Amino acid sequence: MAVTRAKIALDAMGGDYAPEEIVIGAIRATQELDVDIFLVGDRQAIEDCLARHPHQGLNLTIVDAEGVVEMEEDAVVVRRKPKASINVAMNLVKEKQADAVVSAGHSGAAMASALLRLGRLKGIDRPAIGTVFPTMIPGKSVIVLDVGANVDCRPKYLEQFALMGTVYSQYVLGVPEPKVGLLNIGEEPTKGNTLALQTHELLKSNPEIPFVGNAEGRDVLSGNFDVIVCDGFVGNIVLKFAEAVGEILLNIVKEELPQGWRGKLGTALLAPNLKRIKQRVDHAEHGGALLFGVDGICLISHGSSRSGSIFNAIRLAKEAVDNQVSVRINSSTSLLMERQKTEELQNI
Amino acid sequence: MAVTRAKIALDAMGGDYAPEEIVIGAIRATQELDVDIFLVGDRQAIEDCLARHPHQGLNLTIVDAEGVVEMEEDAVVVRRKPKASINVAMNLVKEKQADAVVSAGHSGAAMASALLRLGRLKGIDRPAIGTVFPTMIPGKSVIVLDVGANVDCRPKYLEQFALMGTVYSQYVLGVPEPKVGLLNIGEEPTKGNTLALQTHELLKSNPEIPFVGNAEGRDVLSGNFDVIVCDGFVGNIVLKFAEAVGEILLNIVKEELPQGWRGKLGTALLAPNLKRIKQRVDHAEHGGALLFGVDGICLISHGSSRSGSIFNAIRLAKEAVDNQVSVRINSSTSLLMERQKTEELQNI
Repeated sequence: MAVTRAKIALDAMGGDYAPEEIVIGAIRATQELDVDIFLVGDRQAIEDCLARHPHQGLNLTIVDAEGVVEMEEDAVVVRRKPKASINVAMNLVKEKQADAVVSAGHSGAAMASALLRLGRLKGIDRPAIGTVFPTMIPGKSVIVLDVGANVDCRPKYLEQFALMGTVYSQYVLGVPEPKVGLLNIGEEPTKGNTLALQTHELLKSNPEIPFVGNAEGRDVLSGNFDVIVCDGFVGNIVLKFAEAVGEILLNIVKEELPQGWRGKLGTALLAPNLKRIKQRVDHAEHGGALLFGVDGICLISHGSSRSGSIFNAIRLAKEAVDNQVSVRINSSTSLLMERQKTEELQNI
Repeated sequence: MAVTRAKIALDAMGGDYAPEEIVIGAIRATQELDVDIFLVGDRQAIEDCLARHPHQGLNLTIVDAEGVVEMEEDAVVVRRKPKASINVAMNLVKEKQADAVVSAGHSGAAMASALLRLGRLKGIDRPAIGTVFPTMIPGKSVIVLDVGANVDCRPKYLEQFALMGTVYSQYVLGVPEPKVGLLNIGEEPTKGNTLALQTHELLKSNPEIPFVGNAEGRDVLSGNFDVIVCDGFVGNIVLKFAEAVGEILLNIVKEELPQGWRGKLGTALLAPNLKRIKQRVDHAEHGGALLFGVDGICLISHGSSRSGSIFNAIRLAKEAVDNQVSVRINSSTSLLMERQKTEELQNI
């Protein structure tokens, strides 16, 4: 791991609980992680928050921005608001003053801003959003991409997602030989829709991708795969379903438990266990999603993020910086491009 | 509700635990439900099972069949095995001796056999598999279709799925004014892939469909919708994810609970509550999937079904028979066809 002190540009104005919860998350991150943080947004509002929370001696710098892309606005608004917090944060990365952006604001706007200001990595047609899911094997995670950036995909996009996911799994999640799967409706190579059938062939024939075959719905959580690729339509539906499941599960446990003295006593005795269950299934505990394929690290958090999620997102961003995810993806996709060029020349 | 005594053709040879668990489920169904059952399969094997379980005076009739489509065989094998249990069971419905087929065997083979022997309803291009999910609102269910029959869909297929789901919701699930949703990645009509965008328009403009808008991943379980339509690729992935989630949840609860005396005592006190949680989240408790759009009732159970699931599947089949689902879908889709014809004539 490269020894760096990651510099994070944090969109202090983005998210349902901005700037208060964002600032609290930032304070904790500078205390516990080896990071410097730029708090990007309305100086007065940020200073008011800082005044309420002890932060002396911490590496927090306020960077002025004007306005924010509101959740109900269209993503293209980023073009008309060059001084909005997300744009100023992206510029810090573009100008190499920061290593990564973290935002819990409008996710479409964050993506548009990243594309506009950072640009795509070579060899990447479409950036993808990747999210890390816990699996049923304790301590083992899986990265799923795309979970919402691209609703209509071509096979080669998914091939690129597989390459990017492999790099992330190897260098950030620390899996020496990641198993890559294609999200599909059956294990057999003959199963799936047109996109899945064509992608299967492409993944199978790419020597850079440790493709092990099709993954089914259950495999998102089974722990049998380290990387799962899918189009952003399917991925987004699975992601939102998964988020809801955690919540519903906790509700069911709550509803069913405290009835009568047995329930009350049992619940009291099990309090620490129930808390651990909550941590394992509650998606909010898990930080954010990474935007893969742009020339810089960009972490998109849930709009409902509170300080704990912001802290986790900063941690994820720092891990991506430390492990040089962008550089490694770049060299991985360069190989792909060279091979494609050679094949094209051979076909002439 | 029509007063009928439903006659069920049960594929006694289909499923991982056939024929034993199938026969046990059938015995219970004839005891507790108002049904007559044809046990279709190898007479000797079925008689051996019956001999082990008391069943005197019950309405069970064995119907001979030869062979079964094995799970690992291709679905087209149904054509080459006309006397296989699934085909003989379908024939009973075709010849009006039975009202419905229930099978826990090869689901592709069941679909192929139904298409071949029963045929499609008028106005239906593609039959769909619908499955009923419990929602987080106690007692409220949602029917999701398609969950696997059609991996590449056209907008008009989804329109037909919506019509069929509406009939089922109204007449079987007893929802007077069902809310129909389109599974998508956002609530706004402008969200989605090409299929979703086009389908949204179609659903919105069909007066027979009580369409309320897009449903997101979380809405599969939210209880905000009564019918959710999607293509069979997305639906199958969500279904298998959901099945796995129930199982994983139970594993997590088991793993986290019994540690130390607190855990053991707490678990003992909570035993009945944990059992109720299991019942609410365990997919195996919920029976099977209905094949919509063929000319007859056809219930497809999970291959791993044990007697409880078979019993539930028979109950679901009986409810569909009692509520004349096929007849009602037929009249609903006839309306659609007439409207389409009128539109075509107007366009000449």
